[in-house]
Amino acid sequence: MLPLRQLVRLATSLPKCRPMSASTGPTGPMVDVADDGGIAVMTLQRAPVNSLNLDLLQAISKALDDVAKNKPKGMILTSALPTVFSAGVDITEMYKPDVQRLQQYGNNFQDVWIKLFGFPFATAAAINGHAPAGGCLLAMACEYRVMVSGKYTIGLNETALGIVANDWFMDTMCHTIGIRNTELALTTGKMFAVDEALEIGLIDEAASDKADAIDKCKKFIKRFDKIPPSARNATKLNIRRGPLANIEKNRKREIAEMLEFVLKPEVQQGLEEYMQKLKAKAAK
Amino acid sequence: MLPLRQLVRLATSLPKCRPMSASTGPTGPMVDVADDGGIAVMTLQRAPVNSLNLDLLQAISKALDDVAKNKPKGMILTSALPTVFSAGVDITEMYKPDVQRLQQYGNNFQDVWIKLFGFPFATAAAINGHAPAGGCLLAMACEYRVMVSGKYTIGLNETALGIVANDWFMDTMCHTIGIRNTELALTTGKMFAVDEALEIGLIDEAASDKADAIDKCKKFIKRFDKIPPSARNATKLNIRRGPLANIEKNRKREIAEMLEFVLKPEVQQGLEEYMQKLKAKAAK
Amino acid sequence: MLPLRQLVRLATSLPKCRPMSASTGPTGPMVDVADDGGIAVMTLQRAPVNSLNLDLLQAISKALDDVAKNKPKGMILTSALPTVFSAGVDITEMYKPDVQRLQQYGNNFQDVWIKLFGFPFATAAAINGHAPAGGCLLAMACEYRVMVSGKYTIGLNETALGIVANDWFMDTMCHTIGIRNTELALTTGKMFAVDEALEIGLIDEAASDKADAIDKCKKFIKRFDKIPPSARNATKLNIRRGPLANIEKNRKREIAEMLEFVLKPEVQQGLEEYMQKLKAKAAK
Repeated sequence: MLPLRQLVRLATSLPKCRPMSASTGPTGPMVDVADDGGIAVMTLQRAPVNSLNLDLLQAISKALDDVAKNKPKGMILTSALPTVFSAGVDITEMYKPDVQRLQQYGNNFQDVWIKLFGFPFATAAAINGHAPAGGCLLAMACEYRVMVSGKYTIGLNETALGIVANDWFMDTMCHTIGIRNTELALTTGKMFAVDEALEIGLIDEAASDKADAIDKCKKFIKRFDKIPPSARNATKLNIRRGPLANIEKNRKREIAEMLEFVLKPEVQQGLEEYMQKLKAKAAK
Repeated sequence: MLPLRQLVRLATSLPKCRPMSASTGPTGPMVDVADDGGIAVMTLQRAPVNSLNLDLLQAISKALDDVAKNKPKGMILTSALPTVFSAGVDITEMYKPDVQRLQQYGNNFQDVWIKLFGFPFATAAAINGHAPAGGCLLAMACEYRVMVSGKYTIGLNETALGIVANDWFMDTMCHTIGIRNTELALTTGKMFAVDEALEIGLIDEAASDKADAIDKCKKFIKRFDKIPPSARNATKLNIRRGPLANIEKNRKREIAEMLEFVLKPEVQQGLEEYMQKLKAKAAK
Repeated sequence: MLPLRQLVRLATSLPKCRPMSASTGPTGPMVDVADDGGIAVMTLQRAPVNSLNLDLLQAISKALDDVAKNKPKGMILTSALPTVFSAGVDITEMYKPDVQRLQQYGNNFQDVWIKLFGFPFATAAAINGHAPAGGCLLAMACEYRVMVSGKYTIGLNETALGIVANDWFMDTMCHTIGIRNTELALTTGKMFAVDEALEIGLIDEAASDKADAIDKCKKFIKRFDKIPPSARNATKLNIRRGPLANIEKNRKREIAEMLEFVLKPEVQQGLEEYMQKLKAKAAK
């Protein structure tokens, strides 16, 4: 979950994306929600890479609450950006952090996952770009995944960044592709191409473009047209009970561990070097 | 597990099966057990659809006890009916129920599952017809499934009927096809065609007809000819320990929840409308 | 885990292997460890079949400690013998045992599994021969398995020998191939041919010979060249936490059960007959 010097590898591998400097703010709402015949389409639009800072997490959290109040047929999660679904954690949250804000950050990230993984209505991700780390997590927390074919990749690459994925990252992947596949994926920090993700079940369908991905997500949600929502939704929560119970038990401990890790001098040193590289790039 | 207005969909989708009116009794024993060279063949024969009422559950429960006493090489579960393995719960048990009988019903259903899932000898299901809901559960509780090719389907379609499958239904399916497949199957209430069931591992083999299904079940059981039964049977119970422990913890709570659900006015109203439709059909 | 009369079946099915009499001692170190560019290659060489007696278990245990101290890139486990990876438990440990030594044996076997399954560095098995029972266990405890094509087989065949596999044998197989496959494999005591093992995921790759198997294991370990070891290793331990916690809870109970089983007169009688057959064979 946490960034390190190696994050630079990720950022520089994202095609056509200019890293955002820490001071750049959003030019509009970070999350757009549109109704499409009873299906909520939630679009992340924090340029350039939908990196998850506190503001975006809070916007997602609020949007999930709002959508749930409307009791939609289902919800589709996607991105407004051309090549990235979400790049995961925003490392500027980790660099010289205010401790209280960082705790709040950890709490809000947990909240977003709990709400999305346990979202009582049908959920599908239209993955229209790269989905590393936290981006992969958001997609996996949905019930169904359609990914746009191309050069995009998806995976939990935390180990490649020197980070241990949280238990709820691990649990979510085990829920999706089983224990053995998860062990190999997590230890190698593997980013899956669309074909590989399809074969292993990390995604359910490939799509030709974003519109096609949205269409296929809609078709998934329409499978439930004749299923009474109360029974469907309770069934979903029953089968997802284990990972949700795990995080509830471990919330505080996990945030304490995150703080301890982030505040290590060597981690801060790695972040500083990384931030300077980003500034140098932005200045060119 | 519990019936609702939507059950009518299921009943009317069963080909060539006349729904049985509540007062029709069995014309012979509901369960036949025959010995076939040390293998017990247990045949459910409660026309027209082997729906699981209290009497049939008690007959299955007693038959399982009797078979176990004989220490057979194995046991094959099948149906005497032409197009249905078992249609699952008999909804007449739910309509204007005597509370004490309904509690007894819940207890007996749990007993049957506990005995069958934890049956110490080898078990195989020769699925010679439709196997929705409780019918699918009985088949999944066996160690091996052979299904007759054709238009028959198998699955836990509880959500389609507005019902939340019990934890032991869910656990049994997870044991068979894994968590992710179970989530999709349960939330969509999917009834699998034979090919689909084969691909996902919900059944192990397809057969041309009932005799072929029985033969293939026998071949499965004969795999154990040179395996000392005490080691085999203890190993089976070890790997099935989790779901068996779960139900033991939750038996009372679950029956209380079932009663609360069934006795809701809206559920009884749905059942009444359904029963009237059945009577109208039977009168034609 | 424990030998019985049926063990004779296994021993006689091992091609070209002369069973070792109880008094034969090793002619050199039982475990060889060589460094190959930062990768430790651990070779079991207790002729004729790498059966796991107390001495070999202790040698493996010590070798694992030594290797771990060197913080290698990874470790490859293989055999010096021409047709056997490891035949599993040495039954001479079970015949007329000294109770204290047998307890020590049980403890050491648990230790070896705990160390290998929870080995903090990358592990791969180059399976260059038969791998029944405890041999299969050692291979499964690694993160990756490459097996030499040919007539060799791999599997937990304990039930075929009248034995119930320990929970950690079962947990390790579930971790590798899932619950349903494990149930079928364990109850039938199935020994998998290389193709079958590949299809079910019990091995990850086939190899043309031992050198090819070692090469492929190296390639697996080299996948981690750019993964910071601390994150990789902690991630591995996280996803393997469950089985490791299980054995810690049950160590004493399990050894008590093992002793009770081995000391049964009928088990000792079976062993005596088996040992006499071995001696008769050796005398020819």
